[in-house]
Amino acid sequence: MPADLSTVLLIERHRGTLDKALETIRTREYWSPYAEHPKAYPDAEAGKAAFEALLGHPFELDQPGTDEWTGGERSPFGVELGVRYPHPDPAVLLPAMRAAVPAWRDAGPEARAMVCLEILARINARTPEFAHAVMHTSGQAFTMAFQAGGPHAQDRGLEAVAYAYAEQVRVPETAEWTKPQGKREPIGLRKTFTAVPLGIGLVIGCNTFPTWNGYPGLFASLATGNAVLVKPHPRAVLPLALTVAVAREVLAEAGFPADLVCLAVDRPGEGLAKTLAVRPEIRVIDYTGSTAFGDWLEANARQARVFTEKAGVNSVVIDSTDDYRGMLANLAFSLSLYSGQMCTTPQNLLIPRDGISTDAGPKSYDEVVADLAAAVDGLLGDDARANALLGALVNPEVKERVETAAGIGEVALASRSVAHPDFPRAVVRTPTVIKLDGAKPDAEAAYMSECFGPVSFAVAVDSTADGLELLRRTIREKGAMTVGGYTTSPEVERWLEEVCWDERAQLSLNLTGGVYVNQTAAFSDFHGSGGNPAANAALCDGAFVANRFRTVEVRRPA
Amino acid sequence: MPADLSTVLLIERHRGTLDKALETIRTREYWSPYAEHPKAYPDAEAGKAAFEALLGHPFELDQPGTDEWTGGERSPFGVELGVRYPHPDPAVLLPAMRAAVPAWRDAGPEARAMVCLEILARINARTPEFAHAVMHTSGQAFTMAFQAGGPHAQDRGLEAVAYAYAEQVRVPETAEWTKPQGKREPIGLRKTFTAVPLGIGLVIGCNTFPTWNGYPGLFASLATGNAVLVKPHPRAVLPLALTVAVAREVLAEAGFPADLVCLAVDRPGEGLAKTLAVRPEIRVIDYTGSTAFGDWLEANARQARVFTEKAGVNSVVIDSTDDYRGMLANLAFSLSLYSGQMCTTPQNLLIPRDGISTDAGPKSYDEVVADLAAAVDGLLGDDARANALLGALVNPEVKERVETAAGIGEVALASRSVAHPDFPRAVVRTPTVIKLDGAKPDAEAAYMSECFGPVSFAVAVDSTADGLELLRRTIREKGAMTVGGYTTSPEVERWLEEVCWDERAQLSLNLTGGVYVNQTAAFSDFHGSGGNPAANAALCDGAFVANRFRTVEVRRPA
Repeated sequence: MPADLSTVLLIERHRGTLDKALETIRTREYWSPYAEHPKAYPDAEAGKAAFEALLGHPFELDQPGTDEWTGGERSPFGVELGVRYPHPDPAVLLPAMRAAVPAWRDAGPEARAMVCLEILARINARTPEFAHAVMHTSGQAFTMAFQAGGPHAQDRGLEAVAYAYAEQVRVPETAEWTKPQGKREPIGLRKTFTAVPLGIGLVIGCNTFPTWNGYPGLFASLATGNAVLVKPHPRAVLPLALTVAVAREVLAEAGFPADLVCLAVDRPGEGLAKTLAVRPEIRVIDYTGSTAFGDWLEANARQARVFTEKAGVNSVVIDSTDDYRGMLANLAFSLSLYSGQMCTTPQNLLIPRDGISTDAGPKSYDEVVADLAAAVDGLLGDDARANALLGALVNPEVKERVETAAGIGEVALASRSVAHPDFPRAVVRTPTVIKLDGAKPDAEAAYMSECFGPVSFAVAVDSTADGLELLRRTIREKGAMTVGGYTTSPEVERWLEEVCWDERAQLSLNLTGGVYVNQTAAFSDFHGSGGNPAANAALCDGAFVANRFRTVEVRRPA
Repeated sequence: MPADLSTVLLIERHRGTLDKALETIRTREYWSPYAEHPKAYPDAEAGKAAFEALLGHPFELDQPGTDEWTGGERSPFGVELGVRYPHPDPAVLLPAMRAAVPAWRDAGPEARAMVCLEILARINARTPEFAHAVMHTSGQAFTMAFQAGGPHAQDRGLEAVAYAYAEQVRVPETAEWTKPQGKREPIGLRKTFTAVPLGIGLVIGCNTFPTWNGYPGLFASLATGNAVLVKPHPRAVLPLALTVAVAREVLAEAGFPADLVCLAVDRPGEGLAKTLAVRPEIRVIDYTGSTAFGDWLEANARQARVFTEKAGVNSVVIDSTDDYRGMLANLAFSLSLYSGQMCTTPQNLLIPRDGISTDAGPKSYDEVVADLAAAVDGLLGDDARANALLGALVNPEVKERVETAAGIGEVALASRSVAHPDFPRAVVRTPTVIKLDGAKPDAEAAYMSECFGPVSFAVAVDSTADGLELLRRTIREKGAMTVGGYTTSPEVERWLEEVCWDERAQLSLNLTGGVYVNQTAAFSDFHGSGGNPAANAALCDGAFVANRFRTVEVRRPA
């Protein structure tokens, strides 16, 4: 039976998109093939209905080796989802996945890229449905779940496909090699080069950004010829289950084994990731989550290439500004978005204790902190707007953290609860800002640890130079996904750059408008650097894809 | 004081060579800028004199942190070299090297590539001197030391520079990013991207190919902005000490700190590599050597990216041939070259016990083995030619191995000693071939372990299909740097390819002329695959360079 989706058809549909992605990762200009605005998706109501139809039912995937059904997700907005998922017997599932690999390998890089782009296109078409799934597992407010969980995640998936494709075609499929031998006949060889996968890639998803953080690894491994097993966070299964379902559907239509992409969901408390991670079939692991488990993976999953994004401590150095109000507004938004539950949210605001110079005159440390608190209050003063920005706290640990933060230091801005009109059981909290003295050793334990959630520290430092030293030490010891800086001094800018080059962290300078330190754009911005303790990989670059496959050469006399 | 070597001058000298290397790693055609034939180097006598002038003297490098002088190399040809080298105090040397990095980072990818090419050009000009140094540390015969230790090693260094350069310039230095905002003003960001190094790369050299196996890592780390500390094998210091000296000379002339490249030589029995490998300043490690220490590095040097080439078991599947004499001659040469002391030398010859079909009629297993033995005898019957091919045994362990090999099975070809007219103390041995029955469990312990040196096993297998299964198991469990195959059957060819794709090994088919399974050409052939237990990296590809640096982005409002 011929496949419904021929490679020829897929090339016609998607080759242009791939080429534009390949071009954009070189120019780093703005581009996305996936519309960002909800209005661009006509089926908003149908998407919601599709999401609701999933609730309370088993999520059928028809995978091999299902030994029971598991689940138990509960929306941070308080809705019981009641979806049940297949639980795998790895001893059955993994060999079945492994057996699917040769056909996928033999398809070659272009056909694989085209299938990946079809998967992304179908996911894109169902963005409203995915948005609800992301919202009700991560706690993101709807618009953020729509954008970050939809088109922005799809962008990151496509970016990974583009990098993977580019890497695999750096050598030609065949080459004629002719070496002169002086007066004798030249020696000739005919060579073929084949990109071959490593085996099965394991994607270990996170609670807060199941698709955005999951897609790069998923598509990088798949596009390089590996099978992919997706192990979602137990509290954020649905968006990745939907993803796996779409991938299986497209693979089958294109004539490939659906088992190239499978789902593995934990029994409650099972810790399935630990079992899977050390299986010999698993040769690549992509992980986003705690430093403790990331370190465990790096130390123990020695049979696999392990890509980790772990915890970090993000800082903003505040030296001076020529747009005081813009700076405050920008920072207020960054601290508030998704209640600070982003790996890129600033935590430590490093402010000279003698104050800073601004276009509104000199501002003391206390004034800067008070004005920032006021800016947050202003931004979130209206409950509807607050709900639209904050979303819900993703889990009880974050709630606990924000509730005990007041004990850490002087509260410059208290967190308040916001009632959600549609979801009365949602836990919605505004950010808190705590004052700490950077010179006091007892404060260091707080600001030198990640306090994940809506908690920031206004750390008083002796001077900008002192702040830069603290920045350097923080990145070196704790890692950072992002660094921000505000200064009108070219010298301080250069110092900030030097620290970020030395310690390998991504720097945003003087953001006062509609771009925020905690947001990155695929095809242009790198997410993390892969060069400090917060992550050993960046999204996305050559290093993220180059070692997911190997090139096998066969040479014969010409 | 301006540098003697300006970047402008270096670009004029070397940019064309870099561009040709960049082109060739894409076409994989034949090319080398470094002449292979000794006659191309007019200063042969001066090179020998320069080598001899080094003997018995301290090798001055003017490095920081030298706390004593060490050495003790003895040529496998029996000559006492008597060179003494600086021994470092890592607590002084490493911080000095680290301090040299920012200037090198700030130079950018092109200037770094140009400096690397100048280093290679000066090494190339001194090829005759290097040839003697390689010969008298590795035991390679002169011509091989000249070619493999000279131009071929330089090729691999240049190839690494080309890959490193290409990887660093995949993103532009700057980008303007403009995102439309519907009817509102677009958002604009100005972005800069800087390739930043990880710190210090440690190159741990091997005894047999100090330059060939050392240059890829050295130049990949250096070209990506890292400092490089070279820790040679205690028995093969001189070629890498010369390399470090040239690198320091060029760096200084180009206005960079010479301490970007330093040498670290063990005290006898010190195990300095172990100490250095876990130092926090060391962020990249390139290692060639035993599996035991390679595994130790991978498990313990967790602060570094570790690239290893370890032991493997190389096989040749002999199914059938249409050039029986050519096959025998080619295999005889492969087994003899450098007395089988190459990581790429075939060890297991898998031959159906019922024999094979050839252009000279059917040949039984016994006939194939006897004819191969005769081919080796013929090749090495003349002592002068034997000495020119074999070189000397690199160390007493190899001698021990070849002497005890007769106890493993039936000797089809005995190793004999060859007297060397110029070096009476050299231990020169022809290869031995031992018959083993692949079906006998007690034989498996022998053929499933690396027996490094001039020892090969003619393993009788039940059939070609049985041989292919043994090949698969051998690669999977023990790894392989090379696989060879002889067959006239397209079906067997395809099976061989399938096994090598599945298990990620490099395959040479039906070599009967002047190309040998144990030789690879830079810019075209991959050395190893990086995807089986013999090595976690291939020379050279994107994965070998992409993670030696990170890209740091700085973004500002446009």
